[in-house]
Amino acid sequence: MGANTMNGSPTEASTARGGDVLAALPQHLVQQKVAEALAEDLGLAGDLTSQAIFSTTDQMKAEIVARAPCVVAGLALASAAFRQYDSSVETVQHVEDGARVPAGTVLMTLQGKARSLLGAERVALNFLGQLSGVATLTARFVDAVAGLPAQICCTRKTVPGLRALQKYAVRAGGGVNHRFGLFDAVLIKDNHIAAVGNLTRAIAQAKAQAGHLVKIEVEVDRLDQLSVALESGIDAVLLDNMDIKTLRQAVAMVRAAAAPIICEASGGITLDNVKAVAQTGVDLISVGALTHSAPCVDLGLDCVIDHR
Amino acid sequence: MGANTMNGSPTEASTARGGDVLAALPQHLVQQKVAEALAEDLGLAGDLTSQAIFSTTDQMKAEIVARAPCVVAGLALASAAFRQYDSSVETVQHVEDGARVPAGTVLMTLQGKARSLLGAERVALNFLGQLSGVATLTARFVDAVAGLPAQICCTRKTVPGLRALQKYAVRAGGGVNHRFGLFDAVLIKDNHIAAVGNLTRAIAQAKAQAGHLVKIEVEVDRLDQLSVALESGIDAVLLDNMDIKTLRQAVAMVRAAAAPIICEASGGITLDNVKAVAQTGVDLISVGALTHSAPCVDLGLDCVIDHR
Amino acid sequence: MGANTMNGSPTEASTARGGDVLAALPQHLVQQKVAEALAEDLGLAGDLTSQAIFSTTDQMKAEIVARAPCVVAGLALASAAFRQYDSSVETVQHVEDGARVPAGTVLMTLQGKARSLLGAERVALNFLGQLSGVATLTARFVDAVAGLPAQICCTRKTVPGLRALQKYAVRAGGGVNHRFGLFDAVLIKDNHIAAVGNLTRAIAQAKAQAGHLVKIEVEVDRLDQLSVALESGIDAVLLDNMDIKTLRQAVAMVRAAAAPIICEASGGITLDNVKAVAQTGVDLISVGALTHSAPCVDLGLDCVIDHR
Amino acid sequence: MGANTMNGSPTEASTARGGDVLAALPQHLVQQKVAEALAEDLGLAGDLTSQAIFSTTDQMKAEIVARAPCVVAGLALASAAFRQYDSSVETVQHVEDGARVPAGTVLMTLQGKARSLLGAERVALNFLGQLSGVATLTARFVDAVAGLPAQICCTRKTVPGLRALQKYAVRAGGGVNHRFGLFDAVLIKDNHIAAVGNLTRAIAQAKAQAGHLVKIEVEVDRLDQLSVALESGIDAVLLDNMDIKTLRQAVAMVRAAAAPIICEASGGITLDNVKAVAQTGVDLISVGALTHSAPCVDLGLDCVIDHR
Amino acid sequence: MGANTMNGSPTEASTARGGDVLAALPQHLVQQKVAEALAEDLGLAGDLTSQAIFSTTDQMKAEIVARAPCVVAGLALASAAFRQYDSSVETVQHVEDGARVPAGTVLMTLQGKARSLLGAERVALNFLGQLSGVATLTARFVDAVAGLPAQICCTRKTVPGLRALQKYAVRAGGGVNHRFGLFDAVLIKDNHIAAVGNLTRAIAQAKAQAGHLVKIEVEVDRLDQLSVALESGIDAVLLDNMDIKTLRQAVAMVRAAAAPIICEASGGITLDNVKAVAQTGVDLISVGALTHSAPCVDLGLDCVIDHR
Amino acid sequence: MGANTMNGSPTEASTARGGDVLAALPQHLVQQKVAEALAEDLGLAGDLTSQAIFSTTDQMKAEIVARAPCVVAGLALASAAFRQYDSSVETVQHVEDGARVPAGTVLMTLQGKARSLLGAERVALNFLGQLSGVATLTARFVDAVAGLPAQICCTRKTVPGLRALQKYAVRAGGGVNHRFGLFDAVLIKDNHIAAVGNLTRAIAQAKAQAGHLVKIEVEVDRLDQLSVALESGIDAVLLDNMDIKTLRQAVAMVRAAAAPIICEASGGITLDNVKAVAQTGVDLISVGALTHSAPCVDLGLDCVIDHR
Repeated sequence: MGANTMNGSPTEASTARGGDVLAALPQHLVQQKVAEALAEDLGLAGDLTSQAIFSTTDQMKAEIVARAPCVVAGLALASAAFRQYDSSVETVQHVEDGARVPAGTVLMTLQGKARSLLGAERVALNFLGQLSGVATLTARFVDAVAGLPAQICCTRKTVPGLRALQKYAVRAGGGVNHRFGLFDAVLIKDNHIAAVGNLTRAIAQAKAQAGHLVKIEVEVDRLDQLSVALESGIDAVLLDNMDIKTLRQAVAMVRAAAAPIICEASGGITLDNVKAVAQTGVDLISVGALTHSAPCVDLGLDCVIDHR
Repeated sequence: MGANTMNGSPTEASTARGGDVLAALPQHLVQQKVAEALAEDLGLAGDLTSQAIFSTTDQMKAEIVARAPCVVAGLALASAAFRQYDSSVETVQHVEDGARVPAGTVLMTLQGKARSLLGAERVALNFLGQLSGVATLTARFVDAVAGLPAQICCTRKTVPGLRALQKYAVRAGGGVNHRFGLFDAVLIKDNHIAAVGNLTRAIAQAKAQAGHLVKIEVEVDRLDQLSVALESGIDAVLLDNMDIKTLRQAVAMVRAAAAPIICEASGGITLDNVKAVAQTGVDLISVGALTHSAPCVDLGLDCVIDHR
Repeated sequence: MGANTMNGSPTEASTARGGDVLAALPQHLVQQKVAEALAEDLGLAGDLTSQAIFSTTDQMKAEIVARAPCVVAGLALASAAFRQYDSSVETVQHVEDGARVPAGTVLMTLQGKARSLLGAERVALNFLGQLSGVATLTARFVDAVAGLPAQICCTRKTVPGLRALQKYAVRAGGGVNHRFGLFDAVLIKDNHIAAVGNLTRAIAQAKAQAGHLVKIEVEVDRLDQLSVALESGIDAVLLDNMDIKTLRQAVAMVRAAAAPIICEASGGITLDNVKAVAQTGVDLISVGALTHSAPCVDLGLDCVIDHR
Repeated sequence: MGANTMNGSPTEASTARGGDVLAALPQHLVQQKVAEALAEDLGLAGDLTSQAIFSTTDQMKAEIVARAPCVVAGLALASAAFRQYDSSVETVQHVEDGARVPAGTVLMTLQGKARSLLGAERVALNFLGQLSGVATLTARFVDAVAGLPAQICCTRKTVPGLRALQKYAVRAGGGVNHRFGLFDAVLIKDNHIAAVGNLTRAIAQAKAQAGHLVKIEVEVDRLDQLSVALESGIDAVLLDNMDIKTLRQAVAMVRAAAAPIICEASGGITLDNVKAVAQTGVDLISVGALTHSAPCVDLGLDCVIDHR
Repeated sequence: MGANTMNGSPTEASTARGGDVLAALPQHLVQQKVAEALAEDLGLAGDLTSQAIFSTTDQMKAEIVARAPCVVAGLALASAAFRQYDSSVETVQHVEDGARVPAGTVLMTLQGKARSLLGAERVALNFLGQLSGVATLTARFVDAVAGLPAQICCTRKTVPGLRALQKYAVRAGGGVNHRFGLFDAVLIKDNHIAAVGNLTRAIAQAKAQAGHLVKIEVEVDRLDQLSVALESGIDAVLLDNMDIKTLRQAVAMVRAAAAPIICEASGGITLDNVKAVAQTGVDLISVGALTHSAPCVDLGLDCVIDHR
Repeated sequence: MGANTMNGSPTEASTARGGDVLAALPQHLVQQKVAEALAEDLGLAGDLTSQAIFSTTDQMKAEIVARAPCVVAGLALASAAFRQYDSSVETVQHVEDGARVPAGTVLMTLQGKARSLLGAERVALNFLGQLSGVATLTARFVDAVAGLPAQICCTRKTVPGLRALQKYAVRAGGGVNHRFGLFDAVLIKDNHIAAVGNLTRAIAQAKAQAGHLVKIEVEVDRLDQLSVALESGIDAVLLDNMDIKTLRQAVAMVRAAAAPIICEASGGITLDNVKAVAQTGVDLISVGALTHSAPCVDLGLDCVIDHR
C-alpha cells in the first residue's frame, strides 16, 4: 500500500465518510458473524493454550495496533468478538471506522482476563484485518480519482458469507455500493443477452416484470449494444471492458439520451488505469478486487506491560 | 501471478497433491456454506433478472473457464451451488482440485435451465475463485522451495467462516495445515509469554494440562528463548521474525537437541525470501498471506452457443 | 368472496399470470418454511393419532379440494410438506399457482401411507390456504380495476416470517410487488418527514446516500408536499389517503413533471373504492390488506375410497 | 369490527383475562420470532431510508396508537422488536395484553434514536397488528356467547410459524386453546375414520396406544357415530357441522353418558350463529377463523413532536 | 445385564412392541440429531485417521454386532449416520427396533468406502448404544412385572437434547411414555404444592386453566393428600415414595373413587422392588433411571474380511 | 456409589482439580445447549402447570441439594437454565465444579418467581445430574488408582450432543481428556489395520499426512503388533484388552524404546481391575463408561419455606 496515500500522524487521522453512513451495518449480522467465527476457532475444547497457562483471574491489558497505514473498518466486530467471549472485557475504541491512520496507530485498548483477550484475539483481528483491507484498497481507488466525479463501487464478487460486512467496508473506504444481491436490482449481463439472444427483448421483459422500485441496468461491451439499450429506456448502463476511447464515446452517447442514465465502467480496472477511466466522465467505476482480492491489513494485538 | 509457474497446456495439467488428501473436506461443511452463500445472494426475492428474462423452460449450456493460470480448488462447492439451487442441473468436472491449469482451461461444464445456471453462477464462482486463489498462492510458495525439505504451511489468519475450506485449499496447493483452531494444539505465543512473564513456567503448565494427544509448540524470536524452550521439552518451535543468519543458528540448536523437534519459521515470509528461509533447513514455513491475502483467481462462466 | 369474480368450471380455470413469473419463489425458502411448520406441528412426539390408528403400511389416496372459488397459490409448499414428511408420498398437481378455480376443484392428488398423508395434511393446507387467500384477495382487487392501467400492489404489512411467500402469492393473484424490505429501496414516509422536519433535505440526503440502483419514493398526503417532492427529482410518489379529487390533481401534477415518475395511491383502499382510485390515472394502488388481512381459503383434504 | 363491542374510553379498558394466564408465552419464542422478522425486513443492507435521512444521534419520541377499537395482544413482541434492534430504545407499555381499548388509545410510548424507532417500526406493528387481530376476533365471539357456558376455542388452522403466538392471542381475547399440535392429544377425525373404516377399532387402538396423560377426542358428524363413540369411552367429542337441532340431540346424548365428556361444536361457526350454537349447551365452540382469517388490527406509529 | 432376561438365539429374537408403535419417531429429529452428532465428531478437519490411511476408493464391508444381549433401539439413527456422511454407503438392517437379541447378533451390515464406514462408526454406535441401553433397561423392568397389569413408564429425567429419542427407546423396550415436556399435561408436584400452600386450590386452578384436552395428574406422598386430590376430581395420581403397604391403601382409595383415575407409583423403584410395587395394583410405575442412568449397550463394528 | 469415597462433611468438600482447569468449558456451548434443552421441555405451550397454579408475581426460594455423595459438575449450566428462562432469577452457587460433597449438601440457592424456578428446574437438574454423574464416576476411578502414576482418561464414546460437556465433567472428576473428535489427533484402531491390512504402511501414511501438530496413537492388542508400532515411531500406544501380564510386558517394551511414548490401557476396565492395570505402569487408563454409562447423580430442588 502506498504510504503516501495513508500516512499522517494519528492526530491527522480523518474519517473518509461520516459515521452516519457507516452505521448502516445491521447489528444482528455483527453478532451472528462473530458468533460463528468464535465457534470456528474454539471448537469443543476451547483455547487449550490460554487455559493451560493462565489462571481464571490473571488480568491483562492490550492494544490493537495498525502495523501499516490503513483505513479502518470493522471495529464493532473486533469489540463484539471480545465481549461475546467474555462480557467483562472492557474495550475502548480510539478511532472510528473510516479513519485513515498511519502505521503504529492504536485502534483499540482492551482490559480483562488474559484468557479472554488472548482467546478472542485472532477472531477480532481476522475481522478487523479483512475489513480494513477492503476499506484501504477502496480508499486507494477513491484517492486515485480524487477531483473527478466518478465514484468507486463494489460488485457481487465477495467472499461467501461476508457480503454485508465487505460492502460496509467499501463505504468505510469512501466507495459506494452496487447491488447487494440478485434480489435488489436487475442487471442484464452478457450471459443473459447471449442466452436470450436479443437485447431489446431482454430489456422489455425486465421492464415488464420488475417492480416499480427496481432499477434496471444493462451491461454492454459494444457501442451498438449501447444504442439498443439507450433506446429501450433503462436506468443505468455498465460499460464493460471498453478501452478509454470507446468509453468516452459511450459516455457521450449516454449523455445525449433524453433521460439521465447512470454510466458505470467496469472490467480490468486497476490503480494504474482508474484515473483515465474516471476522466471519461463515467459516474461509477466498479472494481471487483475491492472485495474479492483486497489484502488483509497487518494488525497486531500487543500486550501492555504496566511498569508502575 | 507469474505465468511461468503456472503455465502449460491443459493436457499437462497435473495434480499438486493426490485426490486422497484433498477428499478430506467434510461434506456437511460444503453443503452448509453453499446454502448460506445462496441465501445471501438470493434474499427473499430471488434472481430478479433471470426470472424476468428467461422462461422456466429455457435451457442453457455453459462452461466455467479459468481466465488465468491457477491451481484449482473448490470444484465441489461450485457444483454444490448449482445443484442446491436446482437439482436438475448437470455438472461435469474436467479437472480435479489440485490441478495446475493454464489460462483458458475449461474446469466444469454445466447444462440446465438458464435461470438456474445464471442464478447460481456468482456463488459458484465466488467459492471457486477464492479457494483457487488460496491454492494458487500456496503453490507459488511451494514451487519457490522446490527441492528443499521445507513444507509451506498456513496459519489461523483465515477469513471468518471459511477456515476449513481455506485449509483445504492450502492442501490443494501443495501446502500443509497448521492448527485448525485454538482447540487442537497448544501454541505458546509472544503474548502468552509476555503476560505470564516466564517461558519455563508457561511450558511446564502447558505440559501438565494438555491431553496426551496434544502437541505443544512455542513461538520464540530470540535464541536465548529458544534455549529455554528446548530445555523444557516441547514438540515444535516457531522461529518468528528471525533473520536468515539467526534462523540458521536456531535450526542448529534444535537439531542438537536429544529429541526430534519440528522447526517452523514465520514472519515476513514473501515469495522473494522464502527460498532463503527454506535453505536454513527449517521443516515448515508458515505464511499467513496464504489465507488472509490470496488474490481471487479470475474465472468466468461462458455461455456455450450450440451452432449445430 | 364474490362467486362472480371466481366462478367458472374447472376446465375454464385460467392462470392469472404466467408460470414464469410465479416460479420466482426461492426454493430454499420453500423447504425451510415447510420444515419449520412441520416441526411446529409434530413436536417431539409426532402425530399421536395416526400412529395409534394406522399401521406403518396402511395406504391411502386423497385429494386436496377447494371448497370455495379461489386463485391458487402455494402448491409447491403443500407438496413439499407431504414429501418432507415422507419422501415416498406421490403428489400430482392438477392446476398451477395462479389458476382461478371454482369451488370443488381438485387441486392435488396424493397417494401414500395413511400416516404420512394425515400427518402432513394440516401443514400443507395451512400454507395453501393462507397463500391462496392472499392470491384470491389480490385477484379481486385486480378484477375491480380491469381495463384500467393501474396495477395492484402489496406492502410490507406482511405476516412475520411469511413475507417472501406472501409476495409470491400477490403475484399469483395478478398483483405486483412493492419493496421486499427496508433494504431494497428508499421510501420516505410521513414519520421520516416529521422527524427530520424538512422534506427537501430528506430527499436530498436520500439521493446522496442511496446506491445508483436504489430507487427513491416519497410518501405525501398534501399537494404542497407533492410539489416539493417533484422538484427534488424522485422516482416515485406515494399519494397517501387523498380523496379522489385530490388524487386526480396529484396525478396531473406528476404527469406534468419533466421526467416520468411512478404514481402510487394508498390508504383506505377497499374493493368499493379501488376502481374510482384507478380511474384517477395512478400507476399503482397499494393495499396492505392483501397480506395483512386476507382471509384463508377454505380447502379440504378428502380421503378417496377406492371402490373397485 | 363492531364499535359497540369494543368502544369505551381508555379508562374503561379492562383485561379480558388475567395477566397470569397471558404470561404463558414462552420467552424464547418471543425473541426467536422477533429476530427472524427483523432479519426478514432488514436483509443485508438494513434500513436504507433511515440511514440516509437521520444521523446516528437524531432522537425521536413516538407512540403506537390503536386506530380502531381492539383487544390488544403482542405488546412483548413489539417491545422486543425495538429493543433487539437497539437496546437503548426505551419502551413504556400503557396497557396489558388482553386489554379492550377504543380507537385512539396509546398502547406504547417509545423514545430513542430516530433510526431505531423507524427501523423496527414495521416489524413491531406487524406482530402487534396480527396478534391483536386474533385477540379481537376472539373477543367478538366470546362476547357473542356471553352468559352462556360455552367457551370459544381455536384450532390447528394457524399461520405457519406463528402457532404459539396466535394461541396466546386467543387467550388474550378470552378464548381457550385446543391442541397445540399433533403431539399433545389424540383427535380422531373424519379422514382417520374413513381410512381405517371402523370407528370402534380406531378408538380402541387410540386408547391402547396413547399415554396415560393423553386425552382422546373423536370428531363425529352423525348421531349414530356419536353413539359408537360414547360407548367406546372417550374424553371429548367434536360435533362437526351439525345443525342446531342435531347438536342439541347430540348434547343430550353426551350428557346422558355415565362419565363426563367434553362437548365441542365446530364447522361453519360465524358471529351470526355462534350464540345459537352455544345455546345448545356445548362446552366448547371451536372457530378456525380466529387464527386463519382474523383481520389485522389497524395500528400506527405516530411521531411525537415536542413543542415545549 | 442379566443374561437370563435377554438370552435366546438370534432366531428367537422377538419384538417387544410392534413396529407400528415404534415408527412414531419424527423423521426430522432423526436427521437433525445425527447431523449435530456428526458435526461434533468431525469438526473442521474431518476424520484425520481414515483420510490418511485409506484412499478415496478403498472399499470395506462391516457389521454392527451386539456384544451383549440387549433390546435394540435406534437402528434408523445408525443408518442415518452412515448415509448422511456418505449417501453411497449401503446399510442392511437385520433386526427391527424392539428386538431382543443375544450377544453376538449382527444388527446391521454395511458396505461402502472404508473412509465412510470408519468415519461415521462412532456416531452410529453412540446413538445405537445409548438408545439400546434405554430399551434394554426398560425391558428388564417390563419383564420384572410380567403378568401384572402395571406398565413401566419413563419420566422427564432425560439426557438434554435426546428426550424424543429416549422416549422412543422406552417404547422399544416395552414401556410407555409419560409427559414429553412441561407443555403436554399438568403434573402438580410437591414443590408446586409447597409453594402454593394448598393442594385444593392448586388443583382448582389447574382445572380452570388447562385446555379441555389436557389431563391433570397430582403427585402425593401421603394418604391425606390423596384424599384431597381424589375429592378435587383429577385424571391421575402419582403416588411418590410410598412404602408397599401405603401404596396398597392408596390404590384402594383410588379404586373407590367414582371416576376411573390412573394410579402411578414412583420413587426409589429398582429391579428388586418393582414387582412388589406392581403387585399393589397400580397402573403405572415410573422409573427415572430408564432415561437418566441406563448403561450403554456394548456394540461393536467389525470389519468383515472377504476371503473368497 | 461407594459412600466411602465421597463422604465427609460439607466443610471438608474439596475440589478435585483446580477451577482454572475446569473453566475451559466454552461459554457459547453452555448457552446453546441450555437453550436447546429449554426449548425441548417447554415446546410451544410452556409450563402448563406453573402457569395455571402460580401468579406472575408469586415468589419462591429454593435449594438444589445433592441427595447422594458426589463430585459436582455443571453448575454453570444449571445457573444458565434458570437465568435464560428468566433473567431476574438470582442464583448463588455454594460449591465449585469439581467439589466432592456428601449427601445433603446444598449446591445452589435460587430466588425468584415460582413460575421461573419450577419452569427451569428439570432442565437445570438434568444437566447437573448427568454431568455430576460423569464427574463422580471418574472420581471413583481416579481414587482407585490413587498413588499410582496412571491417569484416568475418557473416550469418544459420549452421549451425542454432549461431548464437550461430558469431557469437561471428566476433568471435574479428576480425569484427563482423550481426543475430542476425529479431527484433533490420529488414532489408528483395529478396524483401520484390518481394512488396510498392514500396520507399518498405515503408520507411515499417517505420519506422512498428519499435520506437524497432530499426534499419532496406535491401538494394538498383541505384542507383535506393538513391536511393529514401536519401530514405526509413534507418539502413543493404546494397549487394548490385554491381560495384566501382557500389559506389563507391553509397558516394558514401550519403556525400552528410544523416544518417550505414552502408554494407554483400555478395554474392559472396571473399578475392580483398574488398580491392577495402573500397577503395570501405564500412563493412562481410558474408560468408555465414564461418558457412556455414568449413572445420573440424584439431586433435588427443594422449596425453602421461610418461617420468619
